[in-house]
Amino acid sequence: MINNILIIGSGLIGSSILRSVKKNHIAKKIFIYEKSNKHINKLKKLSISVNFLKNLNSEISKMDMIVLCTPMSEYVKIISKINKFVKPNTLITDVGSTKENFLKQLKKKLKKKISWISSHPIAGSEVSGPDYGNANLFSNRWCILIKNKNTKNKDFNLLRKFWVKLGSKVLSMDAKKHDVIFSMTSHLPHLIAYNLINTALEFEKQKKYDLIKYSAGGLRDFSRIAASNEIMWRDIFFSNRLNLSKSIDLFITNLKFLKKIINSKNNKLILNKLISAKKARKKIIKLKQDINKPDFGRN
Amino acid sequence: MINNILIIGSGLIGSSILRSVKKNHIAKKIFIYEKSNKHINKLKKLSISVNFLKNLNSEISKMDMIVLCTPMSEYVKIISKINKFVKPNTLITDVGSTKENFLKQLKKKLKKKISWISSHPIAGSEVSGPDYGNANLFSNRWCILIKNKNTKNKDFNLLRKFWVKLGSKVLSMDAKKHDVIFSMTSHLPHLIAYNLINTALEFEKQKKYDLIKYSAGGLRDFSRIAASNEIMWRDIFFSNRLNLSKSIDLFITNLKFLKKIINSKNNKLILNKLISAKKARKKIIKLKQDINKPDFGRN
Repeated sequence: MINNILIIGSGLIGSSILRSVKKNHIAKKIFIYEKSNKHINKLKKLSISVNFLKNLNSEISKMDMIVLCTPMSEYVKIISKINKFVKPNTLITDVGSTKENFLKQLKKKLKKKISWISSHPIAGSEVSGPDYGNANLFSNRWCILIKNKNTKNKDFNLLRKFWVKLGSKVLSMDAKKHDVIFSMTSHLPHLIAYNLINTALEFEKQKKYDLIKYSAGGLRDFSRIAASNEIMWRDIFFSNRLNLSKSIDLFITNLKFLKKIINSKNNKLILNKLISAKKARKKIIKLKQDINKPDFGRN
Repeated sequence: MINNILIIGSGLIGSSILRSVKKNHIAKKIFIYEKSNKHINKLKKLSISVNFLKNLNSEISKMDMIVLCTPMSEYVKIISKINKFVKPNTLITDVGSTKENFLKQLKKKLKKKISWISSHPIAGSEVSGPDYGNANLFSNRWCILIKNKNTKNKDFNLLRKFWVKLGSKVLSMDAKKHDVIFSMTSHLPHLIAYNLINTALEFEKQKKYDLIKYSAGGLRDFSRIAASNEIMWRDIFFSNRLNLSKSIDLFITNLKFLKKIINSKNNKLILNKLISAKKARKKIIKLKQDINKPDFGRN
């Protein structure tokens, strides 16, 4: 059991870690650093015994573990505060969605001998804030730990055990591979969803047709992802922009090809494309990455 | 109450109409014309008293209403069969997802004095076939009826009442407007979903990374729509290709702009875009076009 754990930031992920740490008796004492009074008031209603830190100061030195759950654009500021007080035996992790750029900055900014192993729990949602957190958010979801040649095995194993206790299935990879994979499985889908919704809004204005009201025909699905937290997603798009740009280019090339085969009514090629995409859904359900119910079971 | 109704094609929509006509006592006698023996056997298990027509022949002449629910690419063939036997007092409708091209063909092919008013119930799903049909599929969903200067009021009102009894909220518009609106709210989203999944599959092959397993980060949402019936969607893409092409072009222009503001890290513009998309989700939920639960309530 961890003696003292500090969770910095109590949005969806931070407050879910809090709930799960409590539920699974992972730490003796839980500390929270949270800038928003609104969030603090909500956390106080959860009837979880939590110690709120007013500042990131000398109390940092007694932490066994620190989990950074703020938007990524806050990380550098927080590192400079932690640096003054943190002890080498403290294990630090973050839950950011992109890794390569941040870990380069971290290497420059973080005091030497501090053990920071980056995590990425694949457990987001379109909602944010402590209201939506839940103790089972990480249950049976992947958590990627970033491993490189400097990662200490002992610390890696501690962190792995931490996520396993939260319910995650843990995997490791390097930052570069992580960012390439998630540019395609997460960052591009979010950008596409934002773009589709904005394109529909623009079209609605241009045509002066009321069209959002007909969104049950397909558009509504995209609107869920496009309702995600704008600060979090700005940070992701900016920090993974090189990989994302390549994914966008591939997507546009393929979309232009689809347009071409539709306009030439190429029956064979279009059926190939539509059937191949259908098979991927089966694979996703087999891998338990989505619910096996029509329409996500929502109707 | 309708005396004799004929439903041609018993997939998701046709078999849902069947179930709802039965449940709501809309017709005295229900006839089905279905080519697939597999579908017929499934329908026989529903314990709904149905008369299966082996051919579209003289029995057509006794129908008060005919509802065409096959893939759109079958329509012309079916019109030529119906033409021989149908009486002018029969009300005919179809449930196709695009209208302008088909109604031009219909005008050329259909025997004069026959009343055909086109319908589009906005009630699709990624699943198809009679197993998935249900009597409440149309409940509180839009059904668009296509009205033009030749539409007879009496027939229009009969058709409107039919859909209202099935639970639909009925609206009318002309074919041109219909196809423009749905190119953006339904056809483009489906094409984008197919394209995103295929792009991810191609990327997976290129990079030799296992990435479908991480699709819970966003990609999985698109895979649902991309699992839709390929025949139906080929027909839609081909028949609405002119409107769809314009929607694709607008989408690509906007995506390139997003790429540009991400690469230049334009904070203000990206936040504007992300916040505007988020607002659309609120509108969609307010209009009851989607469920108001995080993650569609699937977790």
